[in-house]
Amino acid sequence: MSSWAGKVRHWNGWGYAGEEPGPEAVERWRRSLGVLAGVRAEDYRSPVPLDGLRLPPARLELDGAGCLPGLQGFRGRLAATPYERALHAAGRSTGDLIRLRTGTNLRFPDLVAYPADEEDVLRLLEYAAARQVALIPTGGGSSVVGGIEPDVRASYNGVINVDLRDLRGVVAIDRASRRARVRAGTLGPDLEETLRSEGLAFRHYPQSYACSTVGGWIAARAGGHFATLYGKIETAVESLRVVTPRGRVETREVPQSASGPDGKAWFIGSEGALGVITEAVLRLQVPPARKRATGFRFAGFAEGLEAVRRIVQAGIYPPVLRLLDEYEAMVAFWGRAGMEPGAFLHLGFEVTEPDGERAVTVAWEEATRLCRAAGGREVPPAGVQAWREGFVQQPYWRDVMIDHGLVVDTLETATAWSRAAALREAVREALFRRMERWSAVAMVLCRVTHAYPDGCSLYFTFVLKPPRDAMWAAWRDVQQAGFEAFLAHGATLSHHHGTGRDFAPFFEREHGPGHVAALRALKAALDPAGVLNPGVFFPAGAA
Amino acid sequence: MSSWAGKVRHWNGWGYAGEEPGPEAVERWRRSLGVLAGVRAEDYRSPVPLDGLRLPPARLELDGAGCLPGLQGFRGRLAATPYERALHAAGRSTGDLIRLRTGTNLRFPDLVAYPADEEDVLRLLEYAAARQVALIPTGGGSSVVGGIEPDVRASYNGVINVDLRDLRGVVAIDRASRRARVRAGTLGPDLEETLRSEGLAFRHYPQSYACSTVGGWIAARAGGHFATLYGKIETAVESLRVVTPRGRVETREVPQSASGPDGKAWFIGSEGALGVITEAVLRLQVPPARKRATGFRFAGFAEGLEAVRRIVQAGIYPPVLRLLDEYEAMVAFWGRAGMEPGAFLHLGFEVTEPDGERAVTVAWEEATRLCRAAGGREVPPAGVQAWREGFVQQPYWRDVMIDHGLVVDTLETATAWSRAAALREAVREALFRRMERWSAVAMVLCRVTHAYPDGCSLYFTFVLKPPRDAMWAAWRDVQQAGFEAFLAHGATLSHHHGTGRDFAPFFEREHGPGHVAALRALKAALDPAGVLNPGVFFPAGAA
Ligand SMILES: Cc1cc2nc3c(=O)[nH]c(=O)nc-3n(C[C@H](O)[C@H](O)[C@H](O)COP(=O)(O)OP(=O)(O)OC[C@H]3O[C@@H](n4cnc5c(N)ncnc54)[C@H](O)[C@@H]3O)c2cc1C
Ligand SMILES: Cc1cc2nc3c(=O)[nH]c(=O)nc-3n(C[C@H](O)[C@H](O)[C@H](O)COP(=O)(O)OP(=O)(O)OC[C@H]3O[C@@H](n4cnc5c(N)ncnc54)[C@H](O)[C@@H]3O)c2cc1C
Repeated sequence: MSSWAGKVRHWNGWGYAGEEPGPEAVERWRRSLGVLAGVRAEDYRSPVPLDGLRLPPARLELDGAGCLPGLQGFRGRLAATPYERALHAAGRSTGDLIRLRTGTNLRFPDLVAYPADEEDVLRLLEYAAARQVALIPTGGGSSVVGGIEPDVRASYNGVINVDLRDLRGVVAIDRASRRARVRAGTLGPDLEETLRSEGLAFRHYPQSYACSTVGGWIAARAGGHFATLYGKIETAVESLRVVTPRGRVETREVPQSASGPDGKAWFIGSEGALGVITEAVLRLQVPPARKRATGFRFAGFAEGLEAVRRIVQAGIYPPVLRLLDEYEAMVAFWGRAGMEPGAFLHLGFEVTEPDGERAVTVAWEEATRLCRAAGGREVPPAGVQAWREGFVQQPYWRDVMIDHGLVVDTLETATAWSRAAALREAVREALFRRMERWSAVAMVLCRVTHAYPDGCSLYFTFVLKPPRDAMWAAWRDVQQAGFEAFLAHGATLSHHHGTGRDFAPFFEREHGPGHVAALRALKAALDPAGVLNPGVFFPAGAA
Repeated sequence: MSSWAGKVRHWNGWGYAGEEPGPEAVERWRRSLGVLAGVRAEDYRSPVPLDGLRLPPARLELDGAGCLPGLQGFRGRLAATPYERALHAAGRSTGDLIRLRTGTNLRFPDLVAYPADEEDVLRLLEYAAARQVALIPTGGGSSVVGGIEPDVRASYNGVINVDLRDLRGVVAIDRASRRARVRAGTLGPDLEETLRSEGLAFRHYPQSYACSTVGGWIAARAGGHFATLYGKIETAVESLRVVTPRGRVETREVPQSASGPDGKAWFIGSEGALGVITEAVLRLQVPPARKRATGFRFAGFAEGLEAVRRIVQAGIYPPVLRLLDEYEAMVAFWGRAGMEPGAFLHLGFEVTEPDGERAVTVAWEEATRLCRAAGGREVPPAGVQAWREGFVQQPYWRDVMIDHGLVVDTLETATAWSRAAALREAVREALFRRMERWSAVAMVLCRVTHAYPDGCSLYFTFVLKPPRDAMWAAWRDVQQAGFEAFLAHGATLSHHHGTGRDFAPFFEREHGPGHVAALRALKAALDPAGVLNPGVFFPAGAA
């Protein structure tokens, strides 16, 4: 169980060394989608190498034996090499990548700690509280909202990224109850491998799957690729074990309860600010025996929305029910022959043996009927396959685009059905208006990634090509226009990415002062010294 | 919309005057089930009448104009009549009913307030905080865990039951998103009536449906009759509006979010201690066009459990999937010809037009196949119908039984599949051992009321006939033996009843000190003066 161990992660980009697209693929991209976005070969700038970074001296120094003075009995690893500090300098949002690849505006943790076990986490918490050192719980580091950025107030005496990668593995499987106790630092592929060998599966596939962890999914309330059927991570968490500066909190391992408010919910979405999640009992699935997928073309987004809404409101939850608006569909099928304009719905079912075939057939027929009733026309599954391959490789392309001066990022939210169409319009409008300030190239794509009986998520991709030295500023400016539009239209700041430091200035506007006061009180009760991930939820300087 | 308005509620028993069983029905009962429980006609004692109660003088006195000095601008109703004070003196647990019907050990609120609107609730909160008066948010008053008992520390200057019955009605329906904004004081039948006139439904049917409210369901994390399909109340709440002493908190009206921890979850299950829920946006259903039900007989409980587990783990969620153990089945079908011993499974599906027929047929065939595979034998639906009628009338019978000296109550919990069979044994054992102390008659029945892929709820009924003057003490003693067994076996103190004052001494043992500290911090943040329902969660004297 060590998909990561054998590989080297890029400190300044997505994923693992050697898995990024090669020169020919980049060249092909330049000539196809690159053209669409106004990219030329001469736009390319190679990223700053590791030894081109200027790292400030670490404020927390290891002694000759590699120990941290004051941190008693720690059995895990401590690392302060430039690679380790750079790897943990930022998450993986487009803004992060711009900074990492250009070597600008970076902050580095003073130290990276890899606890070997839960006791080690407790020791770190004690150390940090005693010395007013900030701790940043870190899973895969794939946050896109500034969740692991070592950016804390000057009053802290240092920042340690607590990388939970060594707290990994499946502790126990309860087959009858289809659940497993899993350590928080377990990466997606490692979890899958262990479960598959037991004939089980988890079916939670965020696009960041290869580089994100169980603990990070829970702390950021992640949503996977198949979540219309399986639900977001919160539905799959049966119980949690969390280490806080005030001691361990472990929720009951029961399927449901009415014993006061659900304590799990305090930590699901807590983004490292309330405690370090060390273990979770996860509800499992059985792996599907086969899949059935097709696609539908709709005249416009509204028709597609109608089909999706009717499908879920009929009680049908296809694991894949992804609606691309006309712009996203155009980009997705760019250069593919025979695709006419319009919105496009990916519809995918999974058949579980021995008993799923008939149920899926009935659901399939009903769902496709509802698509046709909403004006959809079925299109051959070839395009569907293409989209799926792209999904997995896509994160690597962001680095390539940034190196070519393109800013590509996503914003996602959720809203009720009655507001979805208008929200898309409003967000498009807001993003375009802001992009005009920065760029002649401007694209906004939108898709529905998750559907519920009462509403859906909307996932926006925006593309611009600002002046080279304004990439980060343009990114942040456009992103903020998106947040503003979400708030103005009653939507949420995030459906599955979390809020981190990037959203902190907007957090109270979404939730109101009562909610924020309550969350602060929870934090003060569990982390009285305020050492856990300071800066998320509450704007820096205030917490 | 006023199912209650036209009716008079029993101050000392279940439900409404005139709907309780008549003398002939009672006589029939004595000769059938009564015999089984050792009841004779001469056991009957009539309950203490209202004017037989000794009510202490109210500490909060209304002035000549019917106003409460110090409570400015209150527009609702204030009542301090013996009937009103007695009606709010206790919930509706068996222990409560024993005290109400024998007129012993009762505490009465000093005043009952019916706020006319949300502003009134704010006014009450201000008044209470300024004068250190305890407020007990009250919906239907059907709590079975001491949730609305006006039992607070002596340091409070009085107790007001805040009855939310006048905050009722459906505020708005969003048809496309299948949701409605509903006021918290809305009773079950009123909600149903309004929704039905719009072609919609809520499908949340606790047995207490006729006398319980939306706000009470949410505050106690209730579970309805069809919850294996529709989920407990928490799955149906999209957003909440809560008035706290620190102001209003309103959660975002979105289907899902990752914007920090879910703030709804702080109030779902908050049992009146964190704020007064005034409105909720509820996810709706469409009413079923028809139902299909059958029953299966199993040799034992273990075989039945196996069938239920396999059904839900196959992704089939029949709205009714209720497994009676051999003892509960014996009582349920007592005197019915042709019923052999064994466990019994009620299996019921609902068909929704226009598209549900085929899906239900497939699910039906698969579920019944799984029942047969686990050794079940289908039995004619006649018995099924009988059970359903009993379900609705049953609450009224508890009063009759108490008047005959019988103590009948329920305890419910949830656990994983891998522990369910052993838990039932352990709880039976613990209850019997304790009942022996008090009674020669002793029965323990058990059923599975809700099933999940990872586990199920277990719902126990216990029956004993202790010495007449020891009914309450015996009830409490046996109940506590149940709680102890739940805790000892890793189960939860409650799956859908809440915890109230009855469970407060056990609460920290379930959740641990970290959870309790966090919950206390939430309470302190939202209710700094500690006026809201003091005594729930935290043992009295401590909060
Ligand atoms: C290319 C790309 C694609 C993505 N696709 C998706 C997607 O499809 N769906 C989706 O939901 N998200 C997606 N994300 C966002 C990100 O992967 C998720 O937020 C993920 O859940 C983060 O997991 P992680 O292990 O990388 O956590 P990190 O990034 O390390 O941390 C995320 C947050 O959780 C906290 N945290 C991490 N571990 C713990 C722990 N054990 N205890 C307490 N707090 C902890 C951190 O402090 C931080 O606040 C994507 C990101 C990228 C870059
Ligand atoms: C015969 C019988 C059968 C039952 N069957 C079921 C069943 O099938 N399923 C089930 O789940 N429960 C059942 N119960 C228990 C009870 O009906 C539920 O707990 C119900 O949810 C309580 O609702 P209520 O409106 O009566 O609330 P109340 O009893 O008035 O209050 C319950 C708790 O919620 C708080 N509260 C009430 N309204 C608000 C509000 N607006 N804001 C904040 N706090 C509030 C109170 O302070 C109290 O702590 C049954 C009870 C009885 C007596």
